[in-house]
Amino acid sequence: MSDAVSPLASPFPALPAIAGVTPRVARAGYKDWGRCDLTYVELDEGTAVAGVFTRNLCCSSEVELGRQNVAQGAARALVVNAGNSNAFTGYRGREAVEAIMDQVSAHLGCAREAVFVSSTGVIGVPLPKDKARAGIEAALLAPPCTWQEAANTIGTTDTFAKGATATAIVGDKTVTLSAIIKGSGMIAPDMATMLGYVFTDAAVSPAFLQECLSAANKRTFSCITVDSDTSTSDTVLAFATGKAGNAPLTSLDSVGGEAFAAALEQVCRDLAHLVVKDGEGAQKFIAVAVSGAVSDESARRVGLAIANSPLVKTAIAGEDANWGRVVMAVGKAGEPADRDRLSIGFGGTWAARDGQPLADYDEAPVAAHLKGREISIEVDLGLGQGRATVWTCDLTHGYISINADYRS
Amino acid sequence: MSDAVSPLASPFPALPAIAGVTPRVARAGYKDWGRCDLTYVELDEGTAVAGVFTRNLCCSSEVELGRQNVAQGAARALVVNAGNSNAFTGYRGREAVEAIMDQVSAHLGCAREAVFVSSTGVIGVPLPKDKARAGIEAALLAPPCTWQEAANTIGTTDTFAKGATATAIVGDKTVTLSAIIKGSGMIAPDMATMLGYVFTDAAVSPAFLQECLSAANKRTFSCITVDSDTSTSDTVLAFATGKAGNAPLTSLDSVGGEAFAAALEQVCRDLAHLVVKDGEGAQKFIAVAVSGAVSDESARRVGLAIANSPLVKTAIAGEDANWGRVVMAVGKAGEPADRDRLSIGFGGTWAARDGQPLADYDEAPVAAHLKGREISIEVDLGLGQGRATVWTCDLTHGYISINADYRS
Repeated sequence: MSDAVSPLASPFPALPAIAGVTPRVARAGYKDWGRCDLTYVELDEGTAVAGVFTRNLCCSSEVELGRQNVAQGAARALVVNAGNSNAFTGYRGREAVEAIMDQVSAHLGCAREAVFVSSTGVIGVPLPKDKARAGIEAALLAPPCTWQEAANTIGTTDTFAKGATATAIVGDKTVTLSAIIKGSGMIAPDMATMLGYVFTDAAVSPAFLQECLSAANKRTFSCITVDSDTSTSDTVLAFATGKAGNAPLTSLDSVGGEAFAAALEQVCRDLAHLVVKDGEGAQKFIAVAVSGAVSDESARRVGLAIANSPLVKTAIAGEDANWGRVVMAVGKAGEPADRDRLSIGFGGTWAARDGQPLADYDEAPVAAHLKGREISIEVDLGLGQGRATVWTCDLTHGYISINADYRS
Repeated sequence: MSDAVSPLASPFPALPAIAGVTPRVARAGYKDWGRCDLTYVELDEGTAVAGVFTRNLCCSSEVELGRQNVAQGAARALVVNAGNSNAFTGYRGREAVEAIMDQVSAHLGCAREAVFVSSTGVIGVPLPKDKARAGIEAALLAPPCTWQEAANTIGTTDTFAKGATATAIVGDKTVTLSAIIKGSGMIAPDMATMLGYVFTDAAVSPAFLQECLSAANKRTFSCITVDSDTSTSDTVLAFATGKAGNAPLTSLDSVGGEAFAAALEQVCRDLAHLVVKDGEGAQKFIAVAVSGAVSDESARRVGLAIANSPLVKTAIAGEDANWGRVVMAVGKAGEPADRDRLSIGFGGTWAARDGQPLADYDEAPVAAHLKGREISIEVDLGLGQGRATVWTCDLTHGYISINADYRS
């Protein structure tokens, strides 16, 4: 964890314990730091799992194996290593992950495929197997930890611990979701540099859990960007222990199925926003709401072109209502757009309508809005019914400082 | 022109005068600044013209009209306004451009379509017609200026004047090219935030001039990026007066046709490099050489994904041989890539081969290379014969400072 906490940080919420889920942390010493860096979460038998992973073609062995293992639908443990991403480390990296899977599955007496491993940190250095082994041994002996301790332990350049929770009524039961996430840079659509974990006591079939998670991902994690860079390790996993005792959810038509899906999406949205709010160097949280596009997907792409534009992001950092840069970003998105139908606003005030600056444009409310921490940019393409909202942060000196000397 | 000159700047070269080309500058006062901001270049009758323009869909009226006018192949004058891009200004912006075309064509007694107008600067503020008119009147009365004065006058956030020259032997004649360019931010493939003008005394048919310029653009301007943002106004025009008296060039098969094409491409490459070397905040010039791709175009896209990655650019700023970030950028490019065949080097030293860090990797020569001003990143995808080189600069605090309070 970095020293300077993001000005957009929020206190860690009160996350309920989830029956059948036991988190522990230990110090593997992946880096020369005085903090825990290995998180071990044990899951009771009968836990269903679903996952979404980075689309980066140079993904890590953790992602390759995780993607395979999710297919069998059951999980017994999660191990998260912080400080070393183990990505681009060839067969040695893969061996390190398999060694962890062997060690944990031997301890639990479960299938190797039920052990999920994530790693985050520097790319290109094989995860040291001896440190991982000793770290896991220590974790197995450690007392259960709080969600906040686990959230802190999975973090790397994060400046605050991130968690979210929700409940849903399923038949005559209330199911609970508690979730943690890490990530603050290398964040881009198609999944961010982030590791997120949602735990619920709901009884859910693996297939329906995957359906809900994939749908939520599309409208949450895939709509955030910090710096347009896509990590090689991004992973979000959802685990459902079934301890709440509800009638198992198998589709949106199950009693409580929609409520559960909505709660899962809410948790994912909260987590996604927290990642943006810890964007490296972020001083402002920016929501880009695009309407009038030819489709929702087109709106999302236009929104991301705006949210990824360094010139837009620096303008917001400078509290400058430079809507011309938004026009530029719309135009470069490669999506259907018509300059003469385009309207752009900030904080609910239109600055330009139908391709021209507003004659009676009053910059005062916009200037006041831009001085705040939470900024909204509204774009109406004037073409159709497609809409999407994406979220990002401003681009500041802090981003440069963090990234120009991260590794050394 | 900004106060702090780029550390990558080079002195303005000795650009020969081009017969049939007369540049003049004046002060239109588009901004409240004590400098010339209107450039007027008169071209003798018989001048051929070609052009390449931004692909930004929200382009300016200057671009729309220029694209139309290039089609008729003849030019008599060029007007460049600095300080106001006139983009996204609707019919008022278009009227301002047409007024300039009318004024100049009336003065020269030529077709309106032979007058080319470019504008650069803030988006969204209609170009003031009265200032443009008075500025052109002043320019018509001004003495001819030097290429350096013209190069300074078309600049906005540029920190140094940029020019390039070349010659080619065409039959028994030597033809000369002199060229100027402006641009230092909002630079991306598919043309940059830049206005470039190439003048030659060669006799060239408009069609062949366009063929040469389009081909050169593909390997030069379309291979540079500063910040991935694509301007609404990018324009490169080539003017050929024919005063050298060579037998007119009409194709690569003409005597001297290939030599001319090569000279034009050389000038375009020099100009493109100068723009990158004046990238906002640039401290280092970076060449990304991609080989082993499935095609040249695939190599170019992979190169641009690397060159546009904020994490790669900040790593170079920090003189950090963080090849893991290069891996990440390759993987997110969306082009064919295989982690286990990928090799990455800096300054001619491989850091990783075939998907793994080099066992005997000696970081010393790489560290020494990264301390320099001109950095090379080599990427071998190990898949095919496609190759491309793209150029960019590092991402520094200077970029943030320049762009977080540019407009106000």
